[in-house]
Amino acid sequence: MKRAGSIAAVRRTLAAWRRAGDSIAFVPTMGALHRGHLSLVERARRSADRVVVSIFVNPLQFGPHEDLTRYPRPIRRDRELLAAAGVNLLWEPGVKDLYGAGDCTRVRVEGLDHGLEGAVRPGHFTGVATVVAKLLNVVAPDELWLGQKDGQQARLLEQMVDDLKMPVVIRRGPTVREPDGVACSSRNAYLTPAERREAVALAHGLEEARSALEAGERRAARLIAQIRGIWKRYPRVREDYVAVVDAGSLEPVLKVERRVMIAVAARLGRTRLIDNFEWEPR
Amino acid sequence: MKRAGSIAAVRRTLAAWRRAGDSIAFVPTMGALHRGHLSLVERARRSADRVVVSIFVNPLQFGPHEDLTRYPRPIRRDRELLAAAGVNLLWEPGVKDLYGAGDCTRVRVEGLDHGLEGAVRPGHFTGVATVVAKLLNVVAPDELWLGQKDGQQARLLEQMVDDLKMPVVIRRGPTVREPDGVACSSRNAYLTPAERREAVALAHGLEEARSALEAGERRAARLIAQIRGIWKRYPRVREDYVAVVDAGSLEPVLKVERRVMIAVAARLGRTRLIDNFEWEPR
Repeated sequence: MKRAGSIAAVRRTLAAWRRAGDSIAFVPTMGALHRGHLSLVERARRSADRVVVSIFVNPLQFGPHEDLTRYPRPIRRDRELLAAAGVNLLWEPGVKDLYGAGDCTRVRVEGLDHGLEGAVRPGHFTGVATVVAKLLNVVAPDELWLGQKDGQQARLLEQMVDDLKMPVVIRRGPTVREPDGVACSSRNAYLTPAERREAVALAHGLEEARSALEAGERRAARLIAQIRGIWKRYPRVREDYVAVVDAGSLEPVLKVERRVMIAVAARLGRTRLIDNFEWEPR
Repeated sequence: MKRAGSIAAVRRTLAAWRRAGDSIAFVPTMGALHRGHLSLVERARRSADRVVVSIFVNPLQFGPHEDLTRYPRPIRRDRELLAAAGVNLLWEPGVKDLYGAGDCTRVRVEGLDHGLEGAVRPGHFTGVATVVAKLLNVVAPDELWLGQKDGQQARLLEQMVDDLKMPVVIRRGPTVREPDGVACSSRNAYLTPAERREAVALAHGLEEARSALEAGERRAARLIAQIRGIWKRYPRVREDYVAVVDAGSLEPVLKVERRVMIAVAARLGRTRLIDNFEWEPR
């Protein structure tokens, strides 16, 4: 596995692969890798000739009271995992590589950034869209791999790529879960043992909603009430939102008539967790 | 000269030229071409193997009370001029090619869009940056050619390209002028004969400021006063702004100590005209 820090080094390596006719898949991450990331890498590997992974804890997507400084950065372990997973190039840009002196350009996906995570984390998605635009302009991959766990992020970046006519195809990998159903997340590491036991509430609530959908329930209010009913059994879980939204527009729906995303966010102590699934009537 | 409308057609043509190893220079325009545009095309032709020009009157950069609908669109004449100038590909996208259903992504160059034109035309530069990002992602040129006449636009797009790590070099062509000094502009066509005679006020004022700079004047307030003094002789000229700004930050300066842009904007009847020059102490 090659490693690069500077933009120039990344471009040099990629130019050589391009000349050789290789297709490129790209998996941007903030490090603190878990099986969800590695599943994306595996899918990227099967799909393209070369896999590029970036590790960059992007300050622009953290709010002033969020966990930027305490975000886990186990870089040696991450490098070992990626090398073992067959990654061809690991890019570890510094903050100054991506945010030079005078940096002031921001990319906003205006229609999709105000609900769900956007409502709780103002400015978060401007940070995400801006940094991913930069990363894509450096790597210029054929495919960008994103995880369904961050469903709003994936939808928003699809729209950005489409709107800005970026020549890349976005592929989503399914959410990878722990044996008890909890979605893999770098932030799970923050949880105390008691919080970790209750973290299953998110997946448990979503499974209940999925069963109701399969049984014919179409009313969003009923699905939301069922998730909240499940969450009552988990006293440490404090709801941020429980939402049934159109999978394209991310606007709340009253009835499930087209493809939807059921998305939840909750706090356990100081930790925020999110989860979701998409579902479409047959 | 080839002509294309769809993004796919542009990409096909450019991919063939890229495979042949040709370098690409790109000149984005809103049509209604004048000698300023043709001078950019000529410079682009000397600098790269292939020249691509786009003609697109971008609705997103016009305010609700601006001249979008009456903006001149002499497309047959424009095509003839570009073919005669040796352009290799003319791209005439439709509004739906660049703004698809659900389009909601906006690019903002936040530090450079609030002064000068940005103060008079809110949202204008978001429209410019957004459309140029789209155009660049389709054409993927080696060089982007811009005119010094739109000096703030050129500076802002330089910053955007730098911040977003777009792999393109921006080149500026000097302002081309009519025999009496008036900067070539598509909007000159709006002027009545009486207004056209007074339009020389902008260039006349700037020349006075340049002479003062050459003679050693460094105080911005004095330079501004001199321009306004000249403009008193032109009763139809109504000032929008007269400014001495740092050429990099576009922030007003009190004294000329580094490279500056002296920028002016004025109205003549219903028409807004702008002009500027950059100057650096030796």
